[in-house]
Amino acid sequence: MILCMAAVLSLSLHAQDTIKLPAPDPAQSTMSVMDALANRHSVRSFSDKALSTDQLSLLLWAANGINREDGRLTAPTAMNRQDIQLYVCRKDGAYSYDAKQHCLKRVSTEDLRPAVAGDRQPFAKEAPVCLVIVSDSRKFGNSAAAADYGRIDAGYVSQNIYLAATAMGLATVARAMMDRERLAKGLGLVDEQMLLLNHPVGYGK
Amino acid sequence: MILCMAAVLSLSLHAQDTIKLPAPDPAQSTMSVMDALANRHSVRSFSDKALSTDQLSLLLWAANGINREDGRLTAPTAMNRQDIQLYVCRKDGAYSYDAKQHCLKRVSTEDLRPAVAGDRQPFAKEAPVCLVIVSDSRKFGNSAAAADYGRIDAGYVSQNIYLAATAMGLATVARAMMDRERLAKGLGLVDEQMLLLNHPVGYGK
Repeated sequence: MILCMAAVLSLSLHAQDTIKLPAPDPAQSTMSVMDALANRHSVRSFSDKALSTDQLSLLLWAANGINREDGRLTAPTAMNRQDIQLYVCRKDGAYSYDAKQHCLKRVSTEDLRPAVAGDRQPFAKEAPVCLVIVSDSRKFGNSAAAADYGRIDAGYVSQNIYLAATAMGLATVARAMMDRERLAKGLGLVDEQMLLLNHPVGYGK
Repeated sequence: MILCMAAVLSLSLHAQDTIKLPAPDPAQSTMSVMDALANRHSVRSFSDKALSTDQLSLLLWAANGINREDGRLTAPTAMNRQDIQLYVCRKDGAYSYDAKQHCLKRVSTEDLRPAVAGDRQPFAKEAPVCLVIVSDSRKFGNSAAAADYGRIDAGYVSQNIYLAATAMGLATVARAMMDRERLAKGLGLVDEQMLLLNHPVGYGK
Protein backbone atom coordinates (compact mmCIF):
# COMPACT_ATOMS: atom_id res chain seq x y z
CA MET A 1 0.00 0.00 0.00
CA ILE A 2 2.72 2.47 1.00
CA LEU A 3 4.84 1.41 -1.95
CA CYS A 4 1.85 1.92 -4.22
CA MET A 5 1.17 5.40 -2.82
CA ALA A 6 4.84 6.27 -3.21
CA ALA A 7 4.70 5.10 -6.82
CA VAL A 8 1.60 7.21 -7.52
CA LEU A 9 3.16 10.23 -5.82
CA SER A 10 6.37 9.79 -7.76
CA LEU A 11 4.40 9.46 -11.01
CA SER A 12 2.29 12.55 -10.34
CA LEU A 13 5.38 14.51 -9.33
CA HIS A 14 7.17 13.29 -12.41
CA ALA A 15 4.27 14.37 -14.63
CA GLN A 16 4.78 17.98 -13.51
CA ASP A 17 8.53 17.88 -13.18
CA THR A 18 9.03 20.02 -16.26
CA ILE A 19 6.62 22.75 -17.29
CA LYS A 20 7.22 23.84 -20.84
CA LEU A 21 6.58 27.56 -21.17
CA PRO A 22 4.94 29.10 -24.24
CA ALA A 23 7.36 31.10 -26.40
CA PRO A 24 7.81 34.57 -24.91
CA ASP A 25 5.44 36.91 -26.72
CA PRO A 26 6.79 40.48 -26.68
CA ALA A 27 3.49 41.73 -28.13
CA GLN A 28 2.12 41.47 -24.58
CA SER A 29 4.06 44.60 -23.70
CA THR A 30 4.83 47.61 -25.86
CA MET A 31 5.97 50.12 -23.23
CA SER A 32 9.15 51.95 -24.22
CA VAL A 33 12.40 51.66 -22.27
CA MET A 34 12.17 55.35 -21.39
CA ASP A 35 8.60 55.06 -20.10
CA ALA A 36 9.55 52.00 -18.05
CA LEU A 37 12.48 53.89 -16.53
CA ALA A 38 10.20 56.83 -15.76
CA ASN A 39 7.72 54.51 -14.04
CA ARG A 40 10.07 52.08 -12.28
CA HIS A 41 9.42 51.93 -8.56
CA SER A 42 9.13 49.40 -5.77
CA VAL A 43 5.79 48.01 -4.65
CA ARG A 44 5.45 46.21 -1.31
CA SER A 45 1.78 45.22 -1.31
CA PHE A 46 0.33 42.56 -3.58
CA SER A 47 -3.10 41.18 -4.42
CA ASP A 48 -3.43 37.42 -4.84
CA LYS A 49 -4.31 37.71 -8.54
CA ALA A 50 -2.25 35.12 -10.40
CA LEU A 51 0.08 35.67 -13.33
CA SER A 52 -0.83 33.87 -16.54
CA THR A 53 1.62 31.39 -18.01
CA ASP A 54 2.15 33.83 -20.89
CA GLN A 55 3.08 36.56 -18.44
CA LEU A 56 5.45 34.29 -16.54
CA SER A 57 7.04 33.18 -19.79
CA LEU A 58 7.76 36.74 -20.93
CA LEU A 59 8.89 37.85 -17.47
CA LEU A 60 11.41 35.01 -17.14
CA TRP A 61 12.75 35.51 -20.64
CA ALA A 62 13.11 39.25 -19.98
CA ALA A 63 14.82 38.61 -16.66
CA ASN A 64 17.45 36.14 -17.79
CA GLY A 65 16.42 34.51 -21.05
CA ILE A 66 18.38 33.78 -24.18
CA ASN A 67 18.34 36.62 -26.71
CA ARG A 68 20.90 35.32 -29.25
CA GLU A 69 21.55 32.17 -31.19
CA ASP A 70 24.84 31.64 -29.40
CA GLY A 71 22.98 31.29 -26.11
CA ARG A 72 23.82 34.68 -24.66
CA LEU A 73 21.37 36.30 -22.32
CA THR A 74 19.28 39.43 -21.83
CA ALA A 75 21.47 40.15 -18.78
CA PRO A 76 25.26 40.26 -19.10
CA THR A 77 27.47 38.30 -16.73
CA ALA A 78 31.10 38.79 -15.80
CA MET A 79 33.23 37.09 -18.46
CA ASN A 80 30.01 35.56 -19.82
CA ARG A 81 30.13 32.90 -17.12
CA GLN A 82 26.32 32.85 -16.88
CA ASP A 83 26.42 32.36 -13.13
CA ILE A 84 22.86 33.51 -12.43
CA GLN A 85 20.12 30.98 -11.83
CA LEU A 86 16.51 32.08 -11.45
CA TYR A 87 14.03 30.22 -9.28
CA VAL A 88 10.26 30.61 -9.29
CA CYS A 89 8.37 30.07 -6.03
CA ARG A 90 4.62 29.69 -6.22
CA LYS A 91 1.84 28.18 -4.17
CA ASP A 92 2.20 24.91 -6.10
CA GLY A 93 5.92 24.55 -5.53
CA ALA A 94 9.29 25.87 -6.64
CA TYR A 95 10.97 25.66 -10.02
CA SER A 96 14.32 26.38 -11.59
CA TYR A 97 14.12 28.39 -14.82
CA ASP A 98 15.93 26.66 -17.67
CA ALA A 99 16.67 29.45 -20.17
CA LYS A 100 17.93 27.06 -22.87
CA GLN A 101 14.74 25.01 -22.93
CA HIS A 102 12.62 27.96 -21.77
CA CYS A 103 10.93 25.73 -19.22
CA LEU A 104 10.49 25.35 -15.50
CA LYS A 105 12.02 22.38 -13.71
CA ARG A 106 10.43 21.51 -10.43
CA VAL A 107 12.73 21.49 -7.43
CA SER A 108 10.07 21.36 -4.69
CA THR A 109 6.37 20.69 -4.22
CA GLU A 110 6.37 23.02 -1.23
CA ASP A 111 5.18 26.65 -1.20
CA LEU A 112 8.48 28.36 -0.40
CA ARG A 113 7.15 31.92 -0.55
CA PRO A 114 7.14 32.18 3.27
CA ALA A 115 10.85 31.31 3.23
CA VAL A 116 11.40 33.98 0.57
CA ALA A 117 9.47 36.49 2.66
CA GLY A 118 11.17 35.73 5.95
CA ASP A 119 9.61 36.64 9.27
CA ARG A 120 9.81 40.41 9.09
CA GLN A 121 8.27 41.19 5.69
CA PRO A 122 5.24 38.91 5.32
CA PHE A 123 3.91 41.01 2.43
CA ALA A 124 6.32 39.22 0.12
CA LYS A 125 4.56 35.87 0.45
CA GLU A 126 1.27 37.39 -0.71
CA ALA A 127 2.58 37.82 -4.25
CA PRO A 128 1.56 34.96 -6.58
CA VAL A 129 5.17 34.57 -7.75
CA CYS A 130 8.44 35.10 -5.96
CA LEU A 131 11.50 35.06 -8.19
CA VAL A 132 14.78 34.20 -6.49
CA ILE A 133 18.17 35.24 -7.92
CA VAL A 134 21.05 32.88 -7.17
CA SER A 135 24.69 33.17 -8.29
CA ASP A 136 26.66 29.97 -8.64
CA SER A 137 30.25 30.72 -7.64
CA ARG A 138 31.40 27.50 -9.28
CA LYS A 139 30.98 29.33 -12.60
CA PHE A 140 33.92 31.49 -11.50
CA GLY A 141 35.96 28.52 -10.32
CA ASN A 142 35.09 29.47 -6.73
CA SER A 143 37.56 32.35 -7.05
CA ALA A 144 37.74 34.93 -4.28
CA ALA A 145 36.04 37.44 -6.60
CA ALA A 146 33.07 35.15 -7.33
CA ALA A 147 30.85 36.83 -4.76
CA ASP A 148 31.73 40.25 -6.18
CA TYR A 149 30.95 39.23 -9.75
CA GLY A 150 27.78 37.45 -8.63
CA ARG A 151 26.39 40.54 -6.96
CA ILE A 152 26.90 42.74 -10.02
CA ASP A 153 25.33 40.03 -12.17
CA ALA A 154 22.36 39.77 -9.79
CA GLY A 155 21.82 43.52 -10.16
CA TYR A 156 21.49 43.16 -13.94
CA VAL A 157 18.81 40.49 -13.67
CA SER A 158 17.01 42.37 -10.92
CA GLN A 159 16.77 45.51 -13.05
CA ASN A 160 15.49 43.43 -15.97
CA ILE A 161 12.74 42.18 -13.65
CA TYR A 162 11.89 45.72 -12.52
CA LEU A 163 11.70 47.08 -16.07
CA ALA A 164 9.89 44.09 -17.55
CA ALA A 165 7.36 44.07 -14.69
CA THR A 166 6.81 47.80 -15.15
CA ALA A 167 6.36 47.34 -18.90
CA MET A 168 3.88 44.50 -18.27
CA GLY A 169 1.79 46.40 -15.74
CA LEU A 170 3.06 44.24 -12.87
CA ALA A 171 4.40 45.25 -9.49
CA THR A 172 7.61 44.12 -7.81
CA VAL A 173 10.34 44.97 -5.34
CA ALA A 174 13.90 43.71 -5.03
CA ARG A 175 14.67 42.30 -1.60
CA ALA A 176 17.86 41.01 -0.03
CA MET A 177 16.00 39.77 3.06
CA MET A 178 14.93 36.11 3.12
CA ASP A 179 15.14 33.04 5.32
CA ARG A 180 18.29 31.85 3.59
CA GLU A 181 18.71 28.61 5.47
CA ARG A 182 15.16 27.45 4.89
CA LEU A 183 15.09 28.65 1.29
CA ALA A 184 18.44 27.06 0.37
CA LYS A 185 17.24 23.77 1.81
CA GLY A 186 13.88 24.01 0.05
CA LEU A 187 15.43 24.82 -3.32
CA GLY A 188 18.08 22.14 -2.87
CA LEU A 189 20.99 24.57 -3.19
CA VAL A 190 24.59 23.70 -2.43
CA ASP A 191 26.89 26.05 -0.51
CA GLU A 192 28.34 27.58 -3.69
CA GLN A 193 24.90 28.79 -4.78
CA MET A 194 24.51 32.21 -3.20
CA LEU A 195 21.01 33.51 -2.49
CA LEU A 196 21.40 37.17 -3.43
CA LEU A 197 18.05 38.80 -4.18
CA ASN A 198 14.40 37.97 -4.52
CA HIS A 199 11.46 39.64 -6.28
CA PRO A 200 7.84 39.12 -5.31
CA VAL A 201 5.92 39.82 -8.53
CA GLY A 202 2.21 40.31 -8.97
CA TYR A 203 -0.42 43.00 -9.06
CA GLY A 204 -0.13 45.89 -6.65
CA LYS A 205 -2.90 46.10 -4.07
CA MET B 1 52.42 87.22 -16.38
CA ILE B 2 52.13 83.78 -14.79
CA LEU B 3 49.60 85.11 -12.34
CA CYS B 4 47.60 86.56 -15.22
CA MET B 5 47.65 83.29 -17.16
CA ALA B 6 46.58 81.43 -14.04
CA ALA B 7 43.69 83.85 -13.61
CA VAL B 8 42.57 83.40 -17.22
CA LEU B 9 42.86 79.63 -16.92
CA SER B 10 40.90 79.64 -13.68
CA LEU B 11 38.24 81.83 -15.26
CA SER B 12 37.91 79.66 -18.36
CA LEU B 13 37.79 76.52 -16.19
CA HIS B 14 35.23 78.15 -13.97
CA ALA B 15 33.07 79.07 -16.94
CA GLN B 16 32.75 75.40 -17.82
CA ASP B 17 32.66 74.05 -14.29
CA THR B 18 28.99 73.20 -14.53
CA ILE B 19 27.33 72.11 -17.76
CA LYS B 20 23.57 72.34 -17.51
CA LEU B 21 22.00 69.51 -19.51
CA PRO B 22 18.80 69.94 -21.51
CA ALA B 23 15.80 68.19 -19.97
CA PRO B 24 15.87 64.50 -20.93
CA ASP B 25 13.63 64.07 -23.94
CA PRO B 26 12.22 60.52 -24.05
CA ALA B 27 10.83 61.17 -27.54
CA GLN B 28 14.37 60.55 -28.80
CA SER B 29 13.82 56.85 -28.21
CA THR B 30 10.64 54.83 -28.59
CA MET B 31 12.04 51.28 -28.55
CA SER B 32 10.09 48.94 -26.27
CA VAL B 33 11.61 47.28 -23.22
CA MET B 34 11.13 43.88 -24.85
CA ASP B 35 12.86 44.93 -28.07
CA ALA B 36 15.73 46.43 -26.10
CA LEU B 37 16.11 43.18 -24.14
CA ALA B 38 16.04 41.21 -27.39
CA ASN B 39 18.77 43.42 -28.84
CA ARG B 40 20.97 43.98 -25.78
CA HIS B 41 24.55 42.93 -26.44
CA SER B 42 28.07 44.14 -25.82
CA VAL B 43 30.02 46.10 -28.44
CA ARG B 44 33.79 46.50 -28.16
CA SER B 45 34.58 48.66 -31.18
CA PHE B 46 33.62 52.32 -31.44
CA SER B 47 33.74 55.05 -34.06
CA ASP B 48 34.77 58.53 -32.95
CA LYS B 49 31.34 60.00 -33.76
CA ALA B 50 30.30 62.16 -30.82
CA LEU B 51 27.10 61.97 -28.81
CA SER B 52 24.91 65.06 -28.88
CA THR B 53 24.13 66.85 -25.62
CA ASP B 54 20.53 65.67 -25.99
CA GLN B 55 21.71 62.07 -26.23
CA LEU B 56 23.99 62.41 -23.22
CA SER B 57 21.19 64.02 -21.24
CA LEU B 58 18.77 61.16 -21.89
CA LEU B 59 21.44 58.50 -21.36
CA LEU B 60 22.46 59.88 -17.96
CA TRP B 61 18.89 60.31 -16.82
CA ALA B 62 18.10 56.75 -17.91
CA ALA B 63 21.20 55.41 -16.18
CA ASN B 64 20.72 57.00 -12.79
CA GLY B 65 18.43 59.99 -13.05
CA ILE B 66 15.55 61.10 -10.85
CA ASN B 67 12.21 59.65 -11.89
CA ARG B 68 10.01 60.78 -8.98
CA GLU B 69 9.27 64.00 -7.14
CA ASP B 70 10.72 62.59 -3.93
CA GLY B 71 14.12 62.30 -5.61
CA ARG B 72 14.11 58.54 -6.15
CA LEU B 73 16.00 57.16 -9.10
CA THR B 74 15.58 55.06 -12.22
CA ALA B 75 17.88 52.51 -10.56
CA PRO B 76 17.09 51.17 -7.09
CA THR B 77 19.73 51.14 -4.35
CA ALA B 78 19.96 49.07 -1.22
CA MET B 79 17.85 50.74 1.48
CA ASN B 80 17.54 53.75 -0.88
CA ARG B 81 20.99 54.93 0.16
CA GLN B 82 21.68 56.28 -3.36
CA ASP B 83 25.32 55.23 -3.19
CA ILE B 84 25.98 55.27 -6.92
CA GLN B 85 27.78 58.20 -8.51
CA LEU B 86 28.17 58.40 -12.28
CA TYR B 87 31.14 60.06 -13.94
CA VAL B 88 31.44 61.09 -17.58
CA CYS B 89 34.89 60.99 -19.20
CA ARG B 90 35.31 62.73 -22.54
CA LYS B 91 38.09 64.27 -24.58
CA ASP B 92 37.42 67.65 -22.95
CA GLY B 93 37.61 66.38 -19.39
CA ALA B 94 35.73 64.47 -16.76
CA TYR B 95 32.47 65.32 -15.03
CA SER B 96 30.35 64.11 -12.16
CA TYR B 97 26.67 63.69 -13.01
CA ASP B 98 24.45 65.57 -10.60
CA ALA B 99 21.04 63.91 -10.91
CA LYS B 100 19.24 66.50 -8.77
CA GLN B 101 20.31 69.43 -10.93
CA HIS B 102 20.57 67.23 -14.05
CA CYS B 103 23.92 68.77 -14.85
CA LEU B 104 27.57 67.84 -15.21
CA LYS B 105 30.11 69.15 -12.73
CA ARG B 106 33.66 69.22 -13.96
CA VAL B 107 36.15 67.26 -11.90
CA SER B 108 39.06 67.30 -14.38
CA THR B 109 40.18 69.02 -17.56
CA GLU B 110 42.13 65.88 -18.51
CA ASP B 111 40.97 63.21 -20.99
CA LEU B 112 40.69 60.27 -18.61
CA ARG B 113 39.43 57.78 -21.18
CA PRO B 114 42.87 56.11 -21.39
CA ALA B 115 42.71 55.52 -17.62
CA VAL B 116 39.22 54.06 -18.05
CA ALA B 117 40.47 51.83 -20.85
CA GLY B 118 43.60 50.61 -19.08
CA ASP B 119 46.51 49.12 -20.96
CA ARG B 120 44.95 45.92 -22.19
CA GLN B 121 41.73 47.10 -23.83
CA PRO B 122 42.56 50.29 -25.76
CA PHE B 123 39.29 50.07 -27.72
CA ALA B 124 37.52 51.60 -24.74
CA LYS B 125 39.24 54.96 -25.09
CA GLU B 126 38.01 55.31 -28.70
CA ALA B 127 34.43 55.80 -27.56
CA PRO B 128 33.43 59.48 -27.33
CA VAL B 129 32.05 58.96 -23.83
CA CYS B 130 33.13 56.65 -21.04
CA LEU B 131 30.71 56.43 -18.14
CA VAL B 132 32.19 55.33 -14.82
CA ILE B 133 30.10 53.78 -12.05
CA VAL B 134 31.29 54.46 -8.50
CA SER B 135 29.72 53.32 -5.23
CA ASP B 136 30.31 55.48 -2.17
CA SER B 137 30.53 53.17 0.84
CA ARG B 138 30.04 56.12 3.17
CA LYS B 139 26.36 55.98 2.18
CA PHE B 140 26.25 52.67 4.04
CA GLY B 141 28.17 54.03 7.02
CA ASN B 142 31.22 52.15 5.75
CA SER B 143 29.60 48.94 6.98
CA ALA B 144 31.19 45.61 6.10
CA ALA B 145 28.37 44.97 3.63
CA ALA B 146 28.88 48.26 1.76
CA ALA B 147 30.93 46.65 -1.00
CA ASP B 148 28.27 43.96 -1.45
CA TYR B 149 25.44 46.46 -1.69
CA GLY B 150 27.48 48.68 -3.96
CA ARG B 151 28.08 45.93 -6.47
CA ILE B 152 24.40 45.03 -6.75
CA ASP B 153 23.58 48.73 -7.11
CA ALA B 154 26.22 49.11 -9.84
CA GLY B 155 24.61 46.26 -11.75
CA TYR B 156 21.28 48.10 -11.82
CA VAL B 157 22.81 51.25 -13.29
CA SER B 158 24.88 49.26 -15.75
CA GLN B 159 21.81 47.47 -17.09
CA ASN B 160 20.02 50.81 -17.41
CA ILE B 161 22.94 51.99 -19.54
CA TYR B 162 22.81 48.85 -21.68
CA LEU B 163 19.07 49.11 -22.30
CA ALA B 164 18.99 52.87 -22.80
CA ALA B 165 21.95 52.71 -25.21
CA THR B 166 20.25 49.90 -27.12
CA ALA B 167 17.00 51.86 -27.26
CA MET B 168 18.90 54.94 -28.50
CA GLY B 169 20.81 53.11 -31.23
CA LEU B 170 24.08 53.41 -29.31
CA ALA B 171 26.70 50.79 -28.55
CA THR B 172 28.25 49.95 -25.19
CA VAL B 173 29.92 47.30 -23.06
CA ALA B 174 30.23 46.99 -19.28
CA ARG B 175 33.81 46.61 -18.11
CA ALA B 176 35.35 45.95 -14.72
CA MET B 177 38.87 46.52 -16.07
CA MET B 178 40.38 50.00 -15.66
CA ASP B 179 43.50 51.71 -14.36
CA ARG B 180 41.94 52.25 -10.95
CA GLU B 181 44.81 54.14 -9.38
CA ARG B 182 45.10 56.64 -12.21
CA LEU B 183 41.35 57.01 -12.63
CA ALA B 184 40.66 57.51 -8.90
CA LYS B 185 43.32 60.19 -8.81
CA GLY B 186 42.03 61.87 -11.98
CA LEU B 187 38.43 61.88 -10.76
CA GLY B 188 39.50 63.06 -7.31
CA LEU B 189 37.97 60.06 -5.51
CA VAL B 190 38.55 59.21 -1.88
CA ASP B 191 39.20 55.66 -0.69
CA GLU B 192 35.55 55.03 0.16
CA GLN B 193 34.50 55.65 -3.45
CA MET B 194 34.76 52.28 -5.16
CA LEU B 195 35.40 52.17 -8.91
CA LEU B 196 33.16 49.26 -9.91
CA LEU B 197 32.28 49.36 -13.61
CA ASN B 198 32.70 51.51 -16.66
CA HIS B 199 30.83 51.83 -19.96
CA PRO B 200 32.36 53.19 -23.14
CA VAL B 201 29.35 54.49 -25.11
CA GLY B 202 29.22 55.58 -28.71
CA TYR B 203 28.48 54.28 -32.16
CA GLY B 204 29.65 50.80 -33.05
CA LYS B 205 32.29 50.64 -35.75
